[in-house]
Amino acid sequence: MESLNVGVIGCGVWGRNQARVFREIPFTRLHTVSDVDENRAEEVANLNGSDYTCDPVKVIEDPEIELVSICTPTVTHAELGLRALEAGKHVLVEKPMTDTLAEARALMDVAEKKGVKFTVGFVERFNPAVSKALELVKMGAIGDVILAHTRRLSRRPLRIGDVGVIKDLAIHDIDIICQLFPNGPEKVFCTAGSLAHSFEDYANISLRYSGDRNAFMETNWLTPRVRRDLTVTGSEGIVTVQYRTQEVTLENNEKLVQPFLRYEEPLYRELESFSRSVMDDTPPVVSGLDGYKALKICTAALLSAKNGEAVSYDGFE
Amino acid sequence: MESLNVGVIGCGVWGRNQARVFREIPFTRLHTVSDVDENRAEEVANLNGSDYTCDPVKVIEDPEIELVSICTPTVTHAELGLRALEAGKHVLVEKPMTDTLAEARALMDVAEKKGVKFTVGFVERFNPAVSKALELVKMGAIGDVILAHTRRLSRRPLRIGDVGVIKDLAIHDIDIICQLFPNGPEKVFCTAGSLAHSFEDYANISLRYSGDRNAFMETNWLTPRVRRDLTVTGSEGIVTVQYRTQEVTLENNEKLVQPFLRYEEPLYRELESFSRSVMDDTPPVVSGLDGYKALKICTAALLSAKNGEAVSYDGFE
Amino acid sequence: MESLNVGVIGCGVWGRNQARVFREIPFTRLHTVSDVDENRAEEVANLNGSDYTCDPVKVIEDPEIELVSICTPTVTHAELGLRALEAGKHVLVEKPMTDTLAEARALMDVAEKKGVKFTVGFVERFNPAVSKALELVKMGAIGDVILAHTRRLSRRPLRIGDVGVIKDLAIHDIDIICQLFPNGPEKVFCTAGSLAHSFEDYANISLRYSGDRNAFMETNWLTPRVRRDLTVTGSEGIVTVQYRTQEVTLENNEKLVQPFLRYEEPLYRELESFSRSVMDDTPPVVSGLDGYKALKICTAALLSAKNGEAVSYDGFE
Amino acid sequence: MESLNVGVIGCGVWGRNQARVFREIPFTRLHTVSDVDENRAEEVANLNGSDYTCDPVKVIEDPEIELVSICTPTVTHAELGLRALEAGKHVLVEKPMTDTLAEARALMDVAEKKGVKFTVGFVERFNPAVSKALELVKMGAIGDVILAHTRRLSRRPLRIGDVGVIKDLAIHDIDIICQLFPNGPEKVFCTAGSLAHSFEDYANISLRYSGDRNAFMETNWLTPRVRRDLTVTGSEGIVTVQYRTQEVTLENNEKLVQPFLRYEEPLYRELESFSRSVMDDTPPVVSGLDGYKALKICTAALLSAKNGEAVSYDGFE
Repeated sequence: MESLNVGVIGCGVWGRNQARVFREIPFTRLHTVSDVDENRAEEVANLNGSDYTCDPVKVIEDPEIELVSICTPTVTHAELGLRALEAGKHVLVEKPMTDTLAEARALMDVAEKKGVKFTVGFVERFNPAVSKALELVKMGAIGDVILAHTRRLSRRPLRIGDVGVIKDLAIHDIDIICQLFPNGPEKVFCTAGSLAHSFEDYANISLRYSGDRNAFMETNWLTPRVRRDLTVTGSEGIVTVQYRTQEVTLENNEKLVQPFLRYEEPLYRELESFSRSVMDDTPPVVSGLDGYKALKICTAALLSAKNGEAVSYDGFE
Repeated sequence: MESLNVGVIGCGVWGRNQARVFREIPFTRLHTVSDVDENRAEEVANLNGSDYTCDPVKVIEDPEIELVSICTPTVTHAELGLRALEAGKHVLVEKPMTDTLAEARALMDVAEKKGVKFTVGFVERFNPAVSKALELVKMGAIGDVILAHTRRLSRRPLRIGDVGVIKDLAIHDIDIICQLFPNGPEKVFCTAGSLAHSFEDYANISLRYSGDRNAFMETNWLTPRVRRDLTVTGSEGIVTVQYRTQEVTLENNEKLVQPFLRYEEPLYRELESFSRSVMDDTPPVVSGLDGYKALKICTAALLSAKNGEAVSYDGFE
Repeated sequence: MESLNVGVIGCGVWGRNQARVFREIPFTRLHTVSDVDENRAEEVANLNGSDYTCDPVKVIEDPEIELVSICTPTVTHAELGLRALEAGKHVLVEKPMTDTLAEARALMDVAEKKGVKFTVGFVERFNPAVSKALELVKMGAIGDVILAHTRRLSRRPLRIGDVGVIKDLAIHDIDIICQLFPNGPEKVFCTAGSLAHSFEDYANISLRYSGDRNAFMETNWLTPRVRRDLTVTGSEGIVTVQYRTQEVTLENNEKLVQPFLRYEEPLYRELESFSRSVMDDTPPVVSGLDGYKALKICTAALLSAKNGEAVSYDGFE
Repeated sequence: MESLNVGVIGCGVWGRNQARVFREIPFTRLHTVSDVDENRAEEVANLNGSDYTCDPVKVIEDPEIELVSICTPTVTHAELGLRALEAGKHVLVEKPMTDTLAEARALMDVAEKKGVKFTVGFVERFNPAVSKALELVKMGAIGDVILAHTRRLSRRPLRIGDVGVIKDLAIHDIDIICQLFPNGPEKVFCTAGSLAHSFEDYANISLRYSGDRNAFMETNWLTPRVRRDLTVTGSEGIVTVQYRTQEVTLENNEKLVQPFLRYEEPLYRELESFSRSVMDDTPPVVSGLDGYKALKICTAALLSAKNGEAVSYDGFE
């Protein structure tokens, strides 16, 4: 296999980004893009030298296409993902994986049955600063982890979407927290509300882990000053990540250190990594189970926000 | 009344600080200090030109003393406070007000019955940066408040104390949060643990308020890098306070502003303010009810940490 | 005139940038690019939909081209610039304007004689943060200006060039300083050296202005940590500019303020502004005289570095 | 010798500080303080448990006093210093050492003739952050040193003094620069002026060293925002010192590091160190020659500011 033919379904902001990156990766070839809006599909195709169509099924059924990336609204992920997997394609679905946990399980099952590669678009997993921070924590640089705290704030214009800020933004941080605390949380306690959008547009999520560890995530679509950061506090120090500038800071008893990391585009690393796992037949970095777990925490958080109680992660479904 | 005679009970770190400040305030006179350790009492007395005794009752019953400040271990606050109030003294008790809510109510009741001034040592209330931040939030500088987040972290040597980090440190931030959200929280969800001390030495407390507002407090005695900060996130901006350097930062859609505030010692302002309220017969800035409310949230947090549930603030007692 | 036909001579890093931007500006049309390396010219032409040639004279003499931008090595600026001006083109020459002051005067004279628009590529003049900072200083926000200090440091790989760091980098800051202090300096004192390049690769330049004002510029091609900043210290405050992130900070007796500015690409603003001055027949923001004055300070600095004396700006030529 | 008897002449701000510190050092005993203002002398004596006098000669001639510290106005340093040295005392004179270079040489000569310990009050030499920074630079952490840049800015109320800002403030940084570049500078170029005081109240000093190295010092009594920092730029990195907070930052190709240093009062370290050198008969850290060299650079800077030329350090006297 010399080059991998890729189809991108959905030409919104993120689909465009993916189309560009699949063009840039040396060993992938952007074959076809699709969008319900033909003008949009044509424009993205022209910019990147690919074919285009208005019909996603044409992408899914094209025998030349090996990898399908699904960048459409959340409610369509299950149907399009299942069709693509059944057609034997390797599939990337953007986050959130699906709208419901049942749909997410269905995708995982079919992917396994068909023996194809399947992943979810957790792009922050490919942020070099996140990798470095996780490495520092795992090697004990801050002692026992007490709390992981994240913020993901930015003003977002009113627009029609099909999920709220928890499944849209917090899910990135939830997936990172799952890397720090591999076991599921014991309890999920969340406060959320809607000040300017139809879905919840802010949420504060507490996760209680075994051993009395904690995570706290703050997210909203309101605050005009952008914040995207991760702070892990431990018994011997603090590690901080600025997601956007890819800065990592470690402070311990002796010093503050910022290793200088070369800036790398996380999306490029993500798509290159998944394409490589297809070509080399190795497991993707982000599994379907990872997508499922993050979605389950989102679902528990929405339930907690509604009923005001701390929801048990196991058994709330 | 020209000058106010003050007695300080307890000559530990904080009692010493109070003794010094009561000496510095022009209209207060440090009359007598007491400590169970005579050497300690004598040393503090000599440094500040006062009498000393080993017997706190001598301070409480001295007819020349009008204001008694109680800086002893928490478990003694109720007994000493009640005796001083019954003796007709104006009383300041250090935080936490008492060990139990029943004791706290008893202090409030006796203070009211005797018609004396009574307050609790919430020194951060007198931090100029906190006042400025609360003023900015109240005048709408950040729009609707979504989340108030505080941190109070610092390594603390092992020592025998009689309360954990929640009642010792988090209580300061809880009282500030109560100024932001005057109504009590609906729910208290807390994770706490003990890594190096006999009492809990770290705690992460989520408070859920009506209208889906939230507060989150992080505190511990472990992390070697000191953090004492408050971040209030709103729909139109963010206000940050660095408690120690008394810096306030406001960021909104247009700019970041740090008003330069003159540094003032919060303890001086606190003791001066309470002494003034005694001399002028005006209500103290911090009331007994304030002390009670903060203690109630601490108590709910400890209960939540124990049972893993979100505790209802009303009715958990 | 509906659209302006532009020719770009020189397809190195900066010529490529210009080609891209002339393509992006709605009212300019990139007509032809030239480079001595045909492959390079072809590549840039293909990326931007223009013609290409290896012969700069073809660009200069093309009757369809109205504006010629010269992005070639410094030693060629005079000859190419003069030919383009003589051919009646409007001309932008990259900094430094020319290698010698005599050449710079010649360009100015011919531009004036031919009645065409002429400018020099001082791109930082179009940095929104610089404009804001100059505006703050001019409105008196920091009182009397005492010192303007700039840094422009970054590691640069060894390569063949035809000027040193003073004419290559410091000249940007010199031009900005000339906006702060419109009269020429009285004295120029400079220390420069070469640690890793054939031309001087670091320089520290002091300018003494009338009224005992001062400017100090630090520049090098060595330090691995990038610094590009401007600090203006006055009797009532300090204004700071981070050139790269376009941040402006004002600190005075009362507060620190960072107005949030919308990021804008300085090169886009520069080329748009010059093209507009051609189309509207208005004077360019950066004049030939500006280019000459900055070059004169560079020349004096190089002389001072050589002879160790403070060089008088008037009359050293 | 068990304890060292110390006399402090001059009870202004700095004399008071010294009196306090000599009281605190375990092996020194504050014997007598003097001031022309008897009330001031008495007050400082009472605070620190010493004798007092209005006559400095009584301190100088008291046979019990071994170490005399001179904290009086600059013009009196030479006369008082000479008398104390002639009386066989070990002597500390505050900076600037004297008003003229001839006086400074006289002090050095007499100190040597009498075989007593002699030092000048360069308190920043005892700032832990400065020591750390010098150590990093000397071990090659930033490669070849290109420029050392210092700032020492703060608003100062109008008052009668007998020296300007160069001898009062810049001299601290000049002495630190002399530790970085042990050989004297080749040239001194300075711009200075007076906006609000009778002596010069701002100055910008360039020092040119052999090997084309450079130092630049910025100082004033005007700017309301305090700045006291040192930045050393090298071919491989940058070291920064914040004098007041004692923070040191090293940035090189790989990382930014701030070693956490324990805060120590520089004055305590200075007086302890000099007293120790008296007791142990070892050379003081700061020599009379150090005081002379810094004064010589100040004198050259004042001359350059006056005549507008770069002054040769050797031979300008």
